[in-house]
Amino acid sequence: MEISTGAIFEQGNQSIKIPVPVYIRTSASVAGTKEGKGPFGDCFDMVGTDDKFGCDTWEEAESTLQKEALSLAIGKSGLNQKDIKYLFAGDLLGQSIASSFGLGSFQIPLVGMYGACSTCGLTLSMAAVMIAGGMAEHAACVTSSHFASAEKEFRFPLGYGNQRPLSATWTVTGSGAFILSSVKSAHDRAMIDGLTLGRIVDYGLKDSMNMGACMAPAACDTIYHHLMDFDRMPSDYDKIITGDLGSVGQKALWDMMRDKGMDISKVHMDCGMEIYDQSQDAHAGGSGCGCSAVVLSAYILRQLEEGKWKRVLFVPTGALLSKTSFNEGQSIPGIAHGVELVGLK
Amino acid sequence: MEISTGAIFEQGNQSIKIPVPVYIRTSASVAGTKEGKGPFGDCFDMVGTDDKFGCDTWEEAESTLQKEALSLAIGKSGLNQKDIKYLFAGDLLGQSIASSFGLGSFQIPLVGMYGACSTCGLTLSMAAVMIAGGMAEHAACVTSSHFASAEKEFRFPLGYGNQRPLSATWTVTGSGAFILSSVKSAHDRAMIDGLTLGRIVDYGLKDSMNMGACMAPAACDTIYHHLMDFDRMPSDYDKIITGDLGSVGQKALWDMMRDKGMDISKVHMDCGMEIYDQSQDAHAGGSGCGCSAVVLSAYILRQLEEGKWKRVLFVPTGALLSKTSFNEGQSIPGIAHGVELVGLK
Repeated sequence: MEISTGAIFEQGNQSIKIPVPVYIRTSASVAGTKEGKGPFGDCFDMVGTDDKFGCDTWEEAESTLQKEALSLAIGKSGLNQKDIKYLFAGDLLGQSIASSFGLGSFQIPLVGMYGACSTCGLTLSMAAVMIAGGMAEHAACVTSSHFASAEKEFRFPLGYGNQRPLSATWTVTGSGAFILSSVKSAHDRAMIDGLTLGRIVDYGLKDSMNMGACMAPAACDTIYHHLMDFDRMPSDYDKIITGDLGSVGQKALWDMMRDKGMDISKVHMDCGMEIYDQSQDAHAGGSGCGCSAVVLSAYILRQLEEGKWKRVLFVPTGALLSKTSFNEGQSIPGIAHGVELVGLK
Repeated sequence: MEISTGAIFEQGNQSIKIPVPVYIRTSASVAGTKEGKGPFGDCFDMVGTDDKFGCDTWEEAESTLQKEALSLAIGKSGLNQKDIKYLFAGDLLGQSIASSFGLGSFQIPLVGMYGACSTCGLTLSMAAVMIAGGMAEHAACVTSSHFASAEKEFRFPLGYGNQRPLSATWTVTGSGAFILSSVKSAHDRAMIDGLTLGRIVDYGLKDSMNMGACMAPAACDTIYHHLMDFDRMPSDYDKIITGDLGSVGQKALWDMMRDKGMDISKVHMDCGMEIYDQSQDAHAGGSGCGCSAVVLSAYILRQLEEGKWKRVLFVPTGALLSKTSFNEGQSIPGIAHGVELVGLK
């Protein structure tokens, strides 16, 4: 005999309708020099004058990005550090060292997460789940990436001067931090209304210089299931925003969605395609955990806040490779996590 | 004006009292050859005859461990794969590739987590939070480690034949998988009753051949806060079980707890100290994500199931280093996540 005990809220196959309001109270974005010269340059809370951010190594610089972003987000929130019950964080580096060395001084219990460049969506999702479940009042989410630490981690040392094909993306130097809360405040930027956690999708592609194509099937899978689970159409969203597919991945995503009978071209935006302008030689666009995180903080939440957009599906996309898996000839599976955001106006 | 909306359950500073029953319905453990010859050899569900598990690389072998463990745990549960709403998983390898390549075929949405060797505690915690919050009925947790992939990832290639000091631990080849559920069944092995998520604790130690000492302060911090948050004494537990402190770390933990006025020596057990016997030349003990996971599945849950133990605090411990942070001269911060388990007899 099976006895159901917990109250189960409305849920689709892969999705969760968040049952009580979870607010994104405040957020902050810290970005590097190249990002500062891009279209969102004026929107970031802080732009470095030097991509080492005063540190000795690229990894320490990335840790500093996280530290600054979280400090700023907490500072704006009107909360004390000790009011933040848990911290959800992750980055692209092996063993997530940007987070481990960036966030220790906050002395907030840490839930470490890894979803490659989809990590921002993962941290927002699990913090929202915890808050919606009544198990924390306030939580913080932080993710980062750094061009130089990522090149070293995944590809070649910078000094090698490797050439990059046009399908390659440029890892964003930046960190975004978000304070989530069940408590309504005067600051609130948006609400998290639904989640669609993604599956690993592997089409067998192996080109780490074309990550957009590797991740597009995962983005398609998550967006499609989100729409099915909530019985909606693309037009029910002001924007469906992927993390870092870039121009090559965008085309693949549109085609795959069309094959499923859905045209998202009118509402689709990709953070990676917006963060640099054509003159910045970033090829297919920006990428990295920091890409979707800083664009969410600096641009997307502002549109929701100002009432320009009402409902947005934010879908950071991740490529689940490592240099070991790449060197061993493995494919590059993708994953994408969808977070539905609604404005408060 | 601030309006509280979500119902907040009883909570201490770092802890959560799980508000509705979350059952560990079934679990499975898959272990390597050395572990199979150790004291728990007969308790594992599967022991490999060859540590490559029929694969070409150590990383693929580790992925296979996860795949087998999860298949076994689902098989025992009486559930279909599609009943498992989410998968919480992680491992020690850079970018968690053991999980990414081991779990894709299950087609279950994946919450990737990283807490070094504490990851088993992290996955159980977040799955319990999601289920307790009513946002999933069934979820699965998987973690793994492999001696050979870990040596390559963190230390030296095996062929180098590096000598190991007596303070070093031996990374366990193994994977543990757990099916958590809000629905009571005839199989249930134990219940998750409380959580104490840990903070990053950094005493500035830098010796990667003495990880026990690096992690002991974090274990102390989490155990101490757990006891304070729930207003309990060590004697309220049949066992307080750390993950992989080994003999050096155990001594440090006991001393630090005594400094806080608490003697845990009578109830303390360390999975790493139990998984090999003295003749196996593992030095300070076993370690790795897989260590606490297989001991939990094969031994701890059995004691709870049989009513020999009623209440246990399970505290997997993690060392937050990477080879990059180590080579750059950084310290080795620790983290530990506490999961309170109660028997159903």
